[in-house]
Parts: sequence; C-alpha cells; structure tokens
Amino acid sequence: MERVLINELKENESSKISGWADVIRDTKYMVFVILKDRSGSIQVSIDKEKDKEIVEKLSGILANSVLSFTGKMVKSEYVKQGGKEFLPEVVEVLSSADAIPIDSSANIDTRLDYRWIDLRSEKNNLMFQVQTAFVTGMREFLIKEDFTEIHTPKLIGAASESGSDVFEVKYFDRKAYLAQSPQFYKQMAMASGIERIFEVAPAFRAENSNTNRHTTEFTSFDLEFSYIDSYEDVMDMEERLLVAGLEKVKEKYEDKIKELFGTEVIVPKRPFPRINLQDLYKELESRYGYNIPEHDIGDMNAEAEKLTSKYAMEEFGHEFIFVTGFTKTKRAFYHMRKNDIPEGYDLIWRGTEITTGAQREHRYEILKQQAEEKGLGRDVEFYLEFFKYGCPPHGGFAIGVDRLTMLLLGLPSLKEEMFIFRGPSRLTP
Amino acid sequence: MERVLINELKENESSKISGWADVIRDTKYMVFVILKDRSGSIQVSIDKEKDKEIVEKLSGILANSVLSFTGKMVKSEYVKQGGKEFLPEVVEVLSSADAIPIDSSANIDTRLDYRWIDLRSEKNNLMFQVQTAFVTGMREFLIKEDFTEIHTPKLIGAASESGSDVFEVKYFDRKAYLAQSPQFYKQMAMASGIERIFEVAPAFRAENSNTNRHTTEFTSFDLEFSYIDSYEDVMDMEERLLVAGLEKVKEKYEDKIKELFGTEVIVPKRPFPRINLQDLYKELESRYGYNIPEHDIGDMNAEAEKLTSKYAMEEFGHEFIFVTGFTKTKRAFYHMRKNDIPEGYDLIWRGTEITTGAQREHRYEILKQQAEEKGLGRDVEFYLEFFKYGCPPHGGFAIGVDRLTMLLLGLPSLKEEMFIFRGPSRLTP
Repeated sequence: MERVLINELKENESSKISGWADVIRDTKYMVFVILKDRSGSIQVSIDKEKDKEIVEKLSGILANSVLSFTGKMVKSEYVKQGGKEFLPEVVEVLSSADAIPIDSSANIDTRLDYRWIDLRSEKNNLMFQVQTAFVTGMREFLIKEDFTEIHTPKLIGAASESGSDVFEVKYFDRKAYLAQSPQFYKQMAMASGIERIFEVAPAFRAENSNTNRHTTEFTSFDLEFSYIDSYEDVMDMEERLLVAGLEKVKEKYEDKIKELFGTEVIVPKRPFPRINLQDLYKELESRYGYNIPEHDIGDMNAEAEKLTSKYAMEEFGHEFIFVTGFTKTKRAFYHMRKNDIPEGYDLIWRGTEITTGAQREHRYEILKQQAEEKGLGRDVEFYLEFFKYGCPPHGGFAIGVDRLTMLLLGLPSLKEEMFIFRGPSRLTP
Repeated sequence: MERVLINELKENESSKISGWADVIRDTKYMVFVILKDRSGSIQVSIDKEKDKEIVEKLSGILANSVLSFTGKMVKSEYVKQGGKEFLPEVVEVLSSADAIPIDSSANIDTRLDYRWIDLRSEKNNLMFQVQTAFVTGMREFLIKEDFTEIHTPKLIGAASESGSDVFEVKYFDRKAYLAQSPQFYKQMAMASGIERIFEVAPAFRAENSNTNRHTTEFTSFDLEFSYIDSYEDVMDMEERLLVAGLEKVKEKYEDKIKELFGTEVIVPKRPFPRINLQDLYKELESRYGYNIPEHDIGDMNAEAEKLTSKYAMEEFGHEFIFVTGFTKTKRAFYHMRKNDIPEGYDLIWRGTEITTGAQREHRYEILKQQAEEKGLGRDVEFYLEFFKYGCPPHGGFAIGVDRLTMLLLGLPSLKEEMFIFRGPSRLTP
C-alpha cells in the first residue's frame, strides 16, 4: 500500500502512514503513539486487548523510532490533537531508535554535536522550508529578468581579494585556495558577454573569530549584471529581488512563522530609504547620542548598524535602509569611484548589514591603479586581465543566505540557523 | 536614455543600444559596426561624411570594445542581417578593447587561458542559458514535489567515503577535507526528518587524471528522499526529474540548440528501459561481440556504457537506460543490499553514465557491518551515528550538472562546457 501523508488522510479509508514516533505513551488499556511526518501529526491509538500483535511489535520501541501504520483515521471527540485519531491494524518498525542522548535543555554546542536530532523539531524543519521559499522566490525573479545561473570555481590559484583569511588547499604538488567569494569570476562573466548572472554557492572565510554573525563556510547568493548607469540600478535590482523572495515566504509560510517563531514576515515597500553615511552619522548623534569611533569613520560597525535600523523604523517605518558614501579606504579596490567616493552601498535589515553592493570599476587602467593603491599585486593580475579586451559597465552584490534566514526568523545566531554550522573549532558532524 | 535590447528595437524610434562591437568594418564612405547584446545583433551604419563626430570617437577602437549608440533602427533592403540597420546620432565608448590575443583557431588550452574571451560567442553563451533552463526545470519540479533545498558543508572533518582522492585543507591548527559529495549530509537530512531534500553545489575530487569526463571540481545536483519502498521509487523520481528538466530546455531553446550545436533535444518517454547487468552482458556479447574485462565484472566501463546506449537505441528507441544488479564490491557500502546485491542502479545517457542511485541502508547494525567489510573505520563513525536514533528508509542519487549539459549539447569535453574548468594542471584563470 502506498504511504499517505498525515494531513491528507481521509476518514474511514484504509491507509498507510509513516513517520517518527514523537511520543509513545503506555497506559493501562491503551498505547498511544504520536506519529509525525512532514505534513503534520496524529495520535495512533492502540488497544492493548484488541491489538495484541501491534503491542508486541512495539514492545521495547522508543520514541524517535520510525514507524509505519496501516489502518483507518476516524474522528474522535476525545482526542485533543485535531479531534481525530488513527486506528491501526498493522505496524511496521522501519527504524528502531536508541534512547536520545540530548534533550531540549541541552546547550547549543551539545545540540550541534547531535544536529540531526536537534533538527527534528517542526520549528527547525520549517527553517529550511522558509529558506527554500526565500531563495526560490529570488531565483524565479531573476530567471524572469533574463539572468543566467553560473557555477564559478571554489578552488582558485591565487589568494584572491586580500590574501588574508583564506584557506589553503594541498592541490597535488602545489597550493590552491578556497574562494572567499565569486567576485572575480562573476565579473569575468560580464567580460564574457553573459550580461546578467547569479550564483548560489558556498563561500569560505578563514576568520578565526567566534561571533553570531561569522562562520568559516556560508551560502552566498551572488549576482552581477551589465549595462547599468550607476549603482542606483544595483540598489533597485536588490530591492526587487528581496521583495520577490519575501513575497514567496509570506505566501507560503506567514502563519507558520508567526506561530513557531513569533516573527512577522513583512514585504517591504519600494523604494527602500537611502541615506548618505555623513548624514547618517549626524542622525545617529542627534537622535541617539552615538558617535562613530575614530577607527570606524567612513564605515559602519555593529552598533551603528543596530541604531541605523532603529532610525529607519522611526523615520521611515521601514525595515530596510541603504547606506551610501563609504570611504574608499574602507571598501574594496574594485568599487567604482566618483569624486573619490566608492559608488556602492551597504544594505541594513533588522539591525544587521546583509549586503555590500556597488558599481564595479570596469576600466582597466583605473582598476589597476586602484588595486596598486591597496597594495594588491600579483594575486589580482589574472583578474585585471578580464578588463583589457572589452568589458561593459556593471555592478552587483552578494547576500548571505544563512544570515538572511536568521534575521527573517529572529534567530539568535547562525549556529541555530545553518543546516550544519562551521566555525574555527567546529568541523563536525 | 534607458538602454533597449537589440531584438526589442522599434522602427524609427529614438533608442539607445549597448553591446559588443563584434565586427568593425571601415569602408570608403561608411563605417559598419556589428553590435551584439544578449538578445541578438544589428548592423550600425555610420556615414563618414555626415557622422564625423562618431567616426572620430571610433577612431582607433577595435572589435570587442563595448559601445553604446543612440539613434534609430530602420528597415533596409541592403542589409543582409535581418533587413534592418541602426543609424546612430551619438556613440559612447563604454570600454575600449586591446587587440584580442586569441582567435577561433586556438586550441582548447589556449582558449581556456583566455576563457572570458572564448565564452563571448553566441554558442558559448547559449551553453549556460541551456544549463540554467535544465536546472531550473529540475528545481521547479522538486519544489512542487515538496522537496526542501539544503546547503551541506564542503569543509569536513574526516576524509569521507573512501579516504583517497580527497583534497586536504589547512584549517587553522588542524586539517580539514573538501567534500567529494554531500552523500553523508544529505542522508543526515533524512535522519533530521526533512524527508525530501536536494542540493546543487560544488563537489571536489583530487583525481590526478586527465580525461574528458573528469575534473577536480564540478557541480553536483543531489537529491535524497524518505519513505521509499525500493530503489524503483528512486528511478521513478529520477525519470520525472530529467523529463522536467528536458521539457524546460526544449520549450526555451530547442531551435537555438539545433541551429548552434546541431543536436536534438529529446524529451524521453517514461518509463525508461531497465536492464539487469547480467542480461546486459549477454546482450553486449551477442549483439556486439563485447565481453566485459575480468577486472570490470560486476560493473560497467566506458566502452560498455557506449554499447549500452547503442543497445538502448536499437532495442527500445530510447536515449536513456537504467542498469541494475551491480556487484557489492563495486558499489559503496551504504547501498542497501537484497540477496547480497546492491539495491541500486546506473543511468546511462548518450553513451555515458550520468548517475549512480540507490536505496540506502538505514539500519545501523547492517550499515556498520557493510562499512567494516569495506575496511572503513573511524572516518565513517560520525556518519554511522546518524542511524542510531531513528532514520526512515530512503534513497537518492546525484547528477553531474556539467556532464549533463555536455551530453545534451554534444560537446567533446568538460573543458568546453564548464564556465571555468579545473584539472590537476589547471587552476587559472
């Protein structure tokens, strides 16, 4: 018999259901199993007198085992959970579980040791469904907008952008490195005439720091597109992309997210507010008495990001805000500059920076000079070549998919959000 | 003025077009530029007498430069290319190209050195559009089928499946490895109750071999799903997935592929033919006089794959064929076995194996024994743990996205197909 999902059971129809035994409760006359699958859960009621064979098969079986029941769903006013129960005729033990080594009171690091058990909750399963919807919404938007998906190499020959924080790989008789971002290669796509590309792929950072916002490996949603007039076009594209993603999430999971995470899915109005860094500094000072520390002048920091979100809500009633006008020393060499100011932005959402975007410098001579200014030499030579033989003006940005989901669901850290977290001291499971 | 795509130009309407100067031809009275964008190309006709300013700006500008013209498209019976031309009033040089260092006669390795120039052809751009459609079609199918997208770690603590052919990473004060496949982690998702997952991500193989079918990094389309009854369910799912992908490609690019690659997009009929390995050996011998070499008994090899496709076409008129009944010594320890035969298959398409799929062994004790039988010890211990605390029966498979596109378009090698190829002796660009 083919398995039926629990929420698709029809009353009094002989059916097979399969799932996890969330709870097994042995009472005087009855055994109750709460069986859970991806669609929902139901109480399976087993009569000790009548269903002797089933009771025998379930003897010694612990919660978290995987079971299959054949029988019928019936309505029952006695059952709290949905007013229905399942009366089985046959049970099959698909997988017998040992006693679970962790419980819900375990701290996050212990839970990560047993991540596959930790993820079994409805709430944690929902995280990935929500992320899937978010990314699907964004991809669908881009496909409609004529973007091409590419896959750039993660094994690279030179230690890209900065040389620091990069993982080294033993590559046969030489060294390779793990890409910190697809930046150089998505720009190569522009020089290849593909015009509009995106990529969703892992990126690697050898940062030896333990914060809630950092991990050594994360999923980066990158895009780049040609024939823009300015970085305003890049911000417009990002607005539309995020709206598409959030619309999809809201459509599919608004209620579930509210129920399990207690957070609201808000589809933002366009255009998002935009503010120049110098004006922002003034607002933060006058409103909240906050002065940016000397070493962060020309840039943001975690505290400034939090206050900027506060400002965006108070002033514009908006969860998102673009900050522009960063100082060139605080931005990558490949950002185009106008009057010596990078033509780029940060996007802040719910107190955290989620993107750096920019128009890129596509003119070889200027780009080369900007690289040299930052002391970048041989490692970017191969990249500079991309701009020697014709390359259209272009821009783009990257969004951390994990961070996005974390902020959407109001989670305290990437450890809670990622399928499997990777940090300096965590390579397992 | 906003840029208009060339194939969206309206007659006699003042417009701006931007793209690559594919050809620049200087004649006695006229300069002709063939301008190309992602939608198509058009002849820009510049009158040397009338458009002096434009001619001046284009002086010294070489083909492959990126230009923007403002003017009007008009119909013209003299122009071979589409019977229309563009009469410009203004030109802007967006990017001036140096003389191109390669031409179409260059061999593949030279072309790869300048991959971004090599990719500029309509044909090469089309490859990625086709791949995007293929993968989009498959993803859309899976989303409808209730699959969740996950992102598994590529940095792993133990040298997974076999221990050989794995890249070593310097991970702070210890060693990490690059995942050869997401196999263990997609099975972890099953133990996490996610039920149905897919992932599209890079996989890494430290194989020091140079063939047309191998690369050190490739894009793997992986899926895994729970509550199957046998590997027949896995084959069914793969059939439906491939049909969805090929339907999307056919819908969008059938004509273009025929024109530029000379190959037919065939949406296969279901079910695909299926044959047991022992029966296949007999067919290959009786039909083609082919006997599998001793060391490949119980398995396939490149020659057998080619002949198997020939057989599938001759016997079933089908491009695809599933081969089942491999020997356990030739298959991974995690394949479920029945009567000592792995419950898995290879899928052959156009002369090449594109997938290995199977029902997995989800019962801890048996799995542990099968691992030990293959001499796998500590490296798979963490993986075995996934099956101790309940795990539903499940199965899955992986498809190499690059190989799929290569076979679809009839390309001779992965070097031609991948955005950037990676091999033992190639880490650039």
